[in-house]
Amino acid sequence: MDFTDNQNLNNYKEAIEDKLRTVATSSQPASLYEPIRYAIEAGGKRLRPIILLAACEAVGGNPEDALDAGIAVELLHTFTLIHDDIMDADTWRRARETVHKKWDTSSAILAGDAIFVLAYQSLLRTKIKNIKAVIDLFNEGVLGVCEGQALDMTLESKSDVSNSEYLEMIEKKTGMMIAMAAGVGAFIGGAKSAEVKKFKEFGAALGKAFQLQDDYLEITSTRILMGKSLGSDLAKGKKTFLLINAFKLGSEEQIEELSTILDKNEVTTTDIKRVREIFEECGVLDLTKKQIEKNILNSRSLLDFIELEKRQTLLQLIDLVHSREK
Amino acid sequence: MDFTDNQNLNNYKEAIEDKLRTVATSSQPASLYEPIRYAIEAGGKRLRPIILLAACEAVGGNPEDALDAGIAVELLHTFTLIHDDIMDADTWRRARETVHKKWDTSSAILAGDAIFVLAYQSLLRTKIKNIKAVIDLFNEGVLGVCEGQALDMTLESKSDVSNSEYLEMIEKKTGMMIAMAAGVGAFIGGAKSAEVKKFKEFGAALGKAFQLQDDYLEITSTRILMGKSLGSDLAKGKKTFLLINAFKLGSEEQIEELSTILDKNEVTTTDIKRVREIFEECGVLDLTKKQIEKNILNSRSLLDFIELEKRQTLLQLIDLVHSREK
Repeated sequence: MDFTDNQNLNNYKEAIEDKLRTVATSSQPASLYEPIRYAIEAGGKRLRPIILLAACEAVGGNPEDALDAGIAVELLHTFTLIHDDIMDADTWRRARETVHKKWDTSSAILAGDAIFVLAYQSLLRTKIKNIKAVIDLFNEGVLGVCEGQALDMTLESKSDVSNSEYLEMIEKKTGMMIAMAAGVGAFIGGAKSAEVKKFKEFGAALGKAFQLQDDYLEITSTRILMGKSLGSDLAKGKKTFLLINAFKLGSEEQIEELSTILDKNEVTTTDIKRVREIFEECGVLDLTKKQIEKNILNSRSLLDFIELEKRQTLLQLIDLVHSREK
Repeated sequence: MDFTDNQNLNNYKEAIEDKLRTVATSSQPASLYEPIRYAIEAGGKRLRPIILLAACEAVGGNPEDALDAGIAVELLHTFTLIHDDIMDADTWRRARETVHKKWDTSSAILAGDAIFVLAYQSLLRTKIKNIKAVIDLFNEGVLGVCEGQALDMTLESKSDVSNSEYLEMIEKKTGMMIAMAAGVGAFIGGAKSAEVKKFKEFGAALGKAFQLQDDYLEITSTRILMGKSLGSDLAKGKKTFLLINAFKLGSEEQIEELSTILDKNEVTTTDIKRVREIFEECGVLDLTKKQIEKNILNSRSLLDFIELEKRQTLLQLIDLVHSREK
């Protein structure tokens, strides 16, 4: 995502990058702090803290007051990526080796744990009277993410996954952290509890759109077609919205063909191209696009209660999420 | 440790067990909450929350006010055990399979992460004006524990470890959590910051004695002599105060013999008996006992500033730690 056309979003991103460089300056033990810095400084969209700052500003707050909480959410996200990469045995992320690949599993578990503590430390720097409410929102989000990750692993080994099971999983795994970011931002900006609730709903819808789009881009982006990540996800039995619905909408032959590819231990580029064709032929690509649109529209309309001028930055952020190609 | 001779300690332990059964009642996803409950309900001494409650009472507070924080510290401890067991590839704890053995590594990582969130949720239930200060103390303790665990892993692969390196490691890995428990308990009980500092020093000294004694009991307890845990620790290169000093105080022949045993992949009961004899012969058992005494005395005297009557429970707790045989 490119934020350069939006001064606000661009400023947020820069402030976040600057602050992130200050959260783990300890040098000893190096075996702990080197992987921590490696993970924190890996770049990325910084989407979650940007949503948090934008939500704060949308309700009339000063986004600077929300910066420490934004950093906390980004650190939380980083911690979950490190641990998820271990669980998924993924060796690459953002064109670099994952932490457990570059060091080892123990170092990665521990770096994740410590980043989680750094997240709470950053959150606690937020200058606000009711810090307890902020941490409550944060905890609720994190626990949801853990539940979502557990569901994700359960679905991997399940052959017949329903849409509602899948949607529950992504609502928790991806949706709850984005919902929490929006809710915390709004709360710090001074929103009342009914408004905070709206912001959480907005974040949940945007998060759902974001994850469905991840699933969609994974199979349609030409960049990814060349990578190994999708192949290994297919081989592992990772469920996506597209895969689940292909088994519902595909012809007997298409389902047969999909099953053969999924049963392979090594999935080739030709296999991936064929999966994509099947998704297109049986209407799953269209169906997914429609689901994304629906959730994007929903996230937009959930912001209607805010003055048009004040919700501009968030609307542009939704557009950027919607139009992203990676 | 048997608390039955002390009504206070006994009551604390019961209150802790009762409350612990209420912290993770969610049933879904079962793949997350079953390992969580398995780990939480594994029993154990509950030493850390007991110290927390006793510290609260010693400064004139109501231990009931500190119960949620006590539970938080016990959950924190449980979370570190689950992740440490993965890192150390230990398959047994408290006569049961470890979480990653009974389920798998992914489930154990995730159960640990979620228990960590439950710890913060419990901590946040503490009814106190300055909850921020409580969480600050908590975070400082956890980060110290992570640093200590990183040091522990670094020392494993290091052949020449000094006493000061080892002591720094246990001060962080074991000491900081007990120090934090004592400090948080005193703070909730109404202690001023200078007193909280004293309580943290008391906890640090007691924690150091506790860990040295763990090292000592591991090699001297007849119960453990039959177990596999020490053998695998020796094979892995785990450093203990005894081992480090045997390499300093032993004769050339004793050091040679120790090295041969440590280089083995499988350590037998005969080997362990021989290690113990060498420790005895070269004076390491005595030296360790003296170090334990020193830290026990230190922890006692750090409580001198409290009225004798009010520190009775803590003094008895120190005695129980000191005289424990497992």
